[in-house]
Amino acid sequence: MARHLGCLLHMQDEDREKEGRKKRGRSSFYCWHLALQRSVRQKVKDIVQGALFPEAGLDNGTGHAGGAGGLVVVREISLFSYCESCLLPFSIQCHVGYVPSGQRVVGLSKLSRVADVFAKRLQDPQRLSDDICAALQNSINPAGVAVALQCWHIQFPEVLRCNPNPKHLSKSDMQGWVQASVCSSSGVFEVKGNSFWNDFLALLKFRGINLEGGSKSCFPVQSWCPSRSLEVPLCNGHSTKSPNNGKVSSKPGHAYAAMVAAVTSILYSLGEDPMRKELIGTPYRYVQWLMNFKSSNLDFKMNGFNLGKLCLHKTGDVVNSQCHIHSVLNLPFCSQCEHHLLPFHGVVHIGYFDEEEGKHIERSIFQSMVHYYGCKLQVQERLTRQIAEAVHVVFRRGVMVVVEANHICMISRGIEKVGSSTATIAVMGQFSTDPAAKALFLQTISNSTASGG
Amino acid sequence: MARHLGCLLHMQDEDREKEGRKKRGRSSFYCWHLALQRSVRQKVKDIVQGALFPEAGLDNGTGHAGGAGGLVVVREISLFSYCESCLLPFSIQCHVGYVPSGQRVVGLSKLSRVADVFAKRLQDPQRLSDDICAALQNSINPAGVAVALQCWHIQFPEVLRCNPNPKHLSKSDMQGWVQASVCSSSGVFEVKGNSFWNDFLALLKFRGINLEGGSKSCFPVQSWCPSRSLEVPLCNGHSTKSPNNGKVSSKPGHAYAAMVAAVTSILYSLGEDPMRKELIGTPYRYVQWLMNFKSSNLDFKMNGFNLGKLCLHKTGDVVNSQCHIHSVLNLPFCSQCEHHLLPFHGVVHIGYFDEEEGKHIERSIFQSMVHYYGCKLQVQERLTRQIAEAVHVVFRRGVMVVVEANHICMISRGIEKVGSSTATIAVMGQFSTDPAAKALFLQTISNSTASGG
Repeated sequence: MARHLGCLLHMQDEDREKEGRKKRGRSSFYCWHLALQRSVRQKVKDIVQGALFPEAGLDNGTGHAGGAGGLVVVREISLFSYCESCLLPFSIQCHVGYVPSGQRVVGLSKLSRVADVFAKRLQDPQRLSDDICAALQNSINPAGVAVALQCWHIQFPEVLRCNPNPKHLSKSDMQGWVQASVCSSSGVFEVKGNSFWNDFLALLKFRGINLEGGSKSCFPVQSWCPSRSLEVPLCNGHSTKSPNNGKVSSKPGHAYAAMVAAVTSILYSLGEDPMRKELIGTPYRYVQWLMNFKSSNLDFKMNGFNLGKLCLHKTGDVVNSQCHIHSVLNLPFCSQCEHHLLPFHGVVHIGYFDEEEGKHIERSIFQSMVHYYGCKLQVQERLTRQIAEAVHVVFRRGVMVVVEANHICMISRGIEKVGSSTATIAVMGQFSTDPAAKALFLQTISNSTASGG
Repeated sequence: MARHLGCLLHMQDEDREKEGRKKRGRSSFYCWHLALQRSVRQKVKDIVQGALFPEAGLDNGTGHAGGAGGLVVVREISLFSYCESCLLPFSIQCHVGYVPSGQRVVGLSKLSRVADVFAKRLQDPQRLSDDICAALQNSINPAGVAVALQCWHIQFPEVLRCNPNPKHLSKSDMQGWVQASVCSSSGVFEVKGNSFWNDFLALLKFRGINLEGGSKSCFPVQSWCPSRSLEVPLCNGHSTKSPNNGKVSSKPGHAYAAMVAAVTSILYSLGEDPMRKELIGTPYRYVQWLMNFKSSNLDFKMNGFNLGKLCLHKTGDVVNSQCHIHSVLNLPFCSQCEHHLLPFHGVVHIGYFDEEEGKHIERSIFQSMVHYYGCKLQVQERLTRQIAEAVHVVFRRGVMVVVEANHICMISRGIEKVGSSTATIAVMGQFSTDPAAKALFLQTISNSTASGG
């Protein structure tokens, strides 16, 4: 991380850049922004113009097939964008509908290409939806356009930690993500008394997509980004547990100011105006996110958590009592990939043979351990090994750890493999020589996954 | 199509190309192929070399966390490739596992990048799997590599038509697709008595992926491509119904020979050896596929099918009897996108008000109609409108048609939006003025989708 931030600082310190910025000031940014908008408009036109196909029989009269009744909907276009509030990527399922007119249709793939142009920038779900809708309306000039987005934003480790099972997360299929749904519409979709909007929702429903309430403003998304809720600390009671939090929450010292300035200079380089009201505070929030992963090697101490002094409790709930294998499943974590400085997140499953029958460690201790090893710059393979080794210090007979994670770098970088997920295994002691024990623990995880646990 | 084929012929007729081919002959192709293999090996090395990260603690000893027990699996990488038997794209869910050794791990995204290198060429599932496995083993040099692929090949309209619900299709989640699962392994995954292969399968199971039997050769894929089954005509009884079939099945005349030669020249241009044993017959099979979509405007006649002469049967099974709306749902079709010459396929739902209570048309007639309008160069919007207009000739009171389709051009071209699907609506008569009727029909489709119909 030091190298990465050094690079940021280098960018920030470049005198030429600094001078240029002073001279340009606010108004030249406005010009830049206009130029950017013009270039985007041109890009959208280029995409769409080559793919407007004449299609006889598409007149505007209602009641003609392919006319005003001829709704066309492309569903479940997978995209990602960047949160303008914290600079982290967020996932999107985009649904676009339009009603052709003027005897022409647009190539279907162009709908997702246009959506992608607006997604590949700093965004907020509602503005993204509005941008896509307006661009398609202006470039295709159809009878109307409808856009619905389902967006998922990764949760901050702080929020997960203070409130491991927050109720507002249960709405999402993606465990630990914040979900927001937004819609935009134009033309016939806005006319009261016709059913275009309802038809659009009905076609989404075929794919199991139920937009809440079915109204055009499906979901309020003010401050959906979890960084916003951290500005008014959610969890005072817990903040003393992690000293680095306290530092970030309080007025940042010189080091943080330099980081904030560095991120601000990156925004400049991206052609954004850091003074745009939505972006004020964004560099600070991104630094706040990064500092979540400040390594314990520097100044992080796990208050009172010492594996050598773990209390062992007697208990009755031995899982798989035949083999004396204890299972602690689905411990959530959020980590930061050290190759890309992008988050990866998921769950940890821990299995261990107990030393003495009926003794085990509380789940909360395992959760703290997962947080301790996860919440830093990491790679998944090392995280898996480190947790296994830590547990092995206490349970010498045998330990097995399985980590399942989604890597944002797999989604938001070149290859864009949205659905993929990575699993890693580490085994110690008896698990490495006893295939039956390994298989039994894997089956336990499988069963818990099947039951939605 | 004429223009497209003209282009093919032009390519084929280029004297320079022809002369070059004669001179090079068979042996220079072999050299080409070797050069191609070398360039691919270099490409894989370039991808992997920059992403081999040193990772302490990864020793080869069994029983050490991150050592030989440290299985790493990336699941559900969405890819597509091209069938070497018929040149059509096929979809892939790729699962890759490896056991790190030599104190290093590979960047996770590189596993899918390497898989993609081998997918973007003419392939057969088993060879693709073997290629990926060998490339990863050679470039990363880990303790072992495991690869499992689930592949889906679009069904040919001929097969669908002769046998609308073939039993071997029910294994696939993708209606109307042929599925094959294949696996490859190296190193520790091949050693008898250890459990790496079973661990790999267990981690896939967490995501609901059950590879049949769990053995390393999951599924025999000889002639998985439906074009192979057409070579020994499956459906003699039906062949008289479509005169163009007969032509293709018999010795092709001059026109088809020219097309076959044109496709052969495309294979040359792709750097392939058309004499490679797997590719012999491929140009012919591709032409056979294309000729499925020969437009009825040329010489196709629907034997005895005339909308004006449709028999109306009295029946009791009136759906939604209150409104007298009949629903004919989930009629499969396969069509050819006229913008990209790539297939799109899906289902058609037809709703209509009956003229006289209790009278309707048989489902098979609707299926023939869908085949008639679908099986040609088309766009989805037009297909929807044409079916609605055709039904409206008989049922003047009101017709509504919904078409849901997956477009191969959306999957296999630049944007690669694998999960997306397109829905279109056309309404005629009362459906265009009666939102309640429209909503009721849409709800009927929704219910049938929910019940897996």
